[in-house]
Amino acid sequence: MTALSRDDFAALDSTDKLRGLRDRFALPADVIYLDGNSLGALPKATAARVAEVVGQEWGRDLIRSWNAHGWAHLQQRIGDKIGRLIGARPGETLVADSTSVNLFKMLAAALQLRPGRRVILSESTNFPTDLYIAEGLAGFLGQGHELRALPQEAIEQAIDEGVAVVMLTHVNYRTGRMWDMARITARAHASGALMLWDLAHSAGALPLDLAGAGVDLAVGCGYKYLNGGPGAPAFLFMAEKLQNQVSPPLSGWFGHASPFAFEQHYRPAAGIMQAAVGTPPVISLAALEVGVDLMLEVCMADVRAKSVVQTSMFIALVEQELAPFGVALASPREDAQRGSQVCLSHQSAWPIMQALIARGVIGDFRSPDIMRFGFAPLYVRYSDVWEAVIQLKDILASGVWREERFHAKSLVT
Amino acid sequence: MTALSRDDFAALDSTDKLRGLRDRFALPADVIYLDGNSLGALPKATAARVAEVVGQEWGRDLIRSWNAHGWAHLQQRIGDKIGRLIGARPGETLVADSTSVNLFKMLAAALQLRPGRRVILSESTNFPTDLYIAEGLAGFLGQGHELRALPQEAIEQAIDEGVAVVMLTHVNYRTGRMWDMARITARAHASGALMLWDLAHSAGALPLDLAGAGVDLAVGCGYKYLNGGPGAPAFLFMAEKLQNQVSPPLSGWFGHASPFAFEQHYRPAAGIMQAAVGTPPVISLAALEVGVDLMLEVCMADVRAKSVVQTSMFIALVEQELAPFGVALASPREDAQRGSQVCLSHQSAWPIMQALIARGVIGDFRSPDIMRFGFAPLYVRYSDVWEAVIQLKDILASGVWREERFHAKSLVT
Repeated sequence: MTALSRDDFAALDSTDKLRGLRDRFALPADVIYLDGNSLGALPKATAARVAEVVGQEWGRDLIRSWNAHGWAHLQQRIGDKIGRLIGARPGETLVADSTSVNLFKMLAAALQLRPGRRVILSESTNFPTDLYIAEGLAGFLGQGHELRALPQEAIEQAIDEGVAVVMLTHVNYRTGRMWDMARITARAHASGALMLWDLAHSAGALPLDLAGAGVDLAVGCGYKYLNGGPGAPAFLFMAEKLQNQVSPPLSGWFGHASPFAFEQHYRPAAGIMQAAVGTPPVISLAALEVGVDLMLEVCMADVRAKSVVQTSMFIALVEQELAPFGVALASPREDAQRGSQVCLSHQSAWPIMQALIARGVIGDFRSPDIMRFGFAPLYVRYSDVWEAVIQLKDILASGVWREERFHAKSLVT
Repeated sequence: MTALSRDDFAALDSTDKLRGLRDRFALPADVIYLDGNSLGALPKATAARVAEVVGQEWGRDLIRSWNAHGWAHLQQRIGDKIGRLIGARPGETLVADSTSVNLFKMLAAALQLRPGRRVILSESTNFPTDLYIAEGLAGFLGQGHELRALPQEAIEQAIDEGVAVVMLTHVNYRTGRMWDMARITARAHASGALMLWDLAHSAGALPLDLAGAGVDLAVGCGYKYLNGGPGAPAFLFMAEKLQNQVSPPLSGWFGHASPFAFEQHYRPAAGIMQAAVGTPPVISLAALEVGVDLMLEVCMADVRAKSVVQTSMFIALVEQELAPFGVALASPREDAQRGSQVCLSHQSAWPIMQALIARGVIGDFRSPDIMRFGFAPLYVRYSDVWEAVIQLKDILASGVWREERFHAKSLVT
């Protein structure tokens, strides 16, 4: 095999079906952005849409906008658009709250739907907020529920008849490892458990078929691959057959059958709106919709195809160029087991990543030793893949990362 | 007493200490906006600040903004600013989630703090989401908790030793009736109950002294008198002495002691941050901060003084002009018992309000028979008070509201 060269990456850029999409984002010229799995980039159309919501809808039309500009329907409208990206049917997806709050709602629903069962089964390396929320819910209920968090390889064996719900993140935040959604969902169902997927690192990154896999419940994030903006509202999914079988624990007025009748007692709305709680943040919702609309312009299979080539070439180039530097691959080598990110481990991951960021190649660090690189195919170029590895090599070879300035810790990593 | 005339209102405008503030809002020229108690008006500075957050902080600085632009501290920073408006100490107020979700958290805390008690006591005419959330929480816990919702006049008598928490909205959404915060809080404490105030219609409308009154818990709204924008994030207050005595039921990563250590188990943050849950909506937070900053420029006593004159003159003018038309006052006549709104009842309140809105005088309708007028002293002029009543009189006298076009119902009222 001949060595990979800069020309190989340039050639792929020139024939990339998605290459026109990059121009739809307002990326700084001096940045190679490989952190869209933490915060997606800004679509150029967002600024104008947000300005319109602020200036015209809020400023000029004021309270009338709840009807005149459809604010009252935003959560369902954007929810259904996300539903198209994840293989949900209309009426199964809602934008609301944060991923954490939505997880609380969906787990609470699962425990109600499986009253005889006490276990929430999850992966010990799941994203921490998922574990925290499950732990908090179990403790709060005080009815003997338990979060059982096990290593990834022990999950399938552990799905037994005490398990109410299997809660997994489809693509692991730290390693990029991807579960076989259809297989695990079927496995959960075979034991009578419900299946809840966290799609934070999947929605907008690869094709999903929640309906086809028979998924019961899901949650996901608006600010990663959906490019909805910092802290964008999250989404939740509840299969139609499960709706209206449970009492929402967070029974707020936006989830009421008739919020503006101001009735004294709660009556859940029909369908997915029953998972709504309070008044949603309209400006942030408007920004999210722009990101989702942009994603709907492309074919998710094309996105996935580009992502697979980018991540596999990144891995190949790392192995070609970084062999002497103590960098190890922390993501699966097999494409089908890998989401849209590649993680490398190194004992000095923190200062190395800071040195890389200082050069404008933005990935992130995950404790204790992971350098994480996300590939958002809508705006990452193949030449970015090349450049990121070459810059990383230069940092490792020169030892520049040993300088003191790269060792200071920051609050958010 | 001589009749009130247009000149009386014009004279008050000319000497109004707060008159310069109106120009800081982007109000349409053809609107008299008396619905700031539902959705506050747009501060002119908001558009530029939101554009900066979108374009520079998100678009240019991307993930780095969590540290570089202090996104990680926004919830506490804006919380403390609101704390200054409500008489809280630093570290007792947090911006987070929606009012409904915050109410769930604060009620859950109250029930944990009073483990032997089973009653959440509230007013049957409280804002419905407060009742719904309490009802949902009690049912969800399944431990014999109960929401006891009684008429306003029965509340004080009903505070007994079975009551864990008294949950009241300081200013009633439907009538504008205001509780004596210090008196009821003391009454709750005398029976060993905790006191939780919903400040949705109080924060930014009148001076509050939560610390002085010894209030335990509170929640409130960012999109009414704080002018934070549609669905702005809400706030919560927990007295310092209660913090770290409870386990948050919604135990998300933003409430963790060390969110970016990605620990497997939840450890609540010290202080008010433990009430944070998921990643907050940064764009909506930035808009809220502009509204709060503007409110901090003025003295709340001046705001209240103007509000009292406006609401009392509105009432006087209604009685002078509308006597023949079957309009009844549904708000307290005594200033000390009234918030910053006046409600009128009429059996045809809906079409009358629609006719009024069609003329650019915007109040709102509350089922079944209430016309609600909110007076936000930062931007409502005395002449608006005059004009609103005169337009209302003309609508009633002409019977124009009987036209079919004013009878169609809309989703949001």
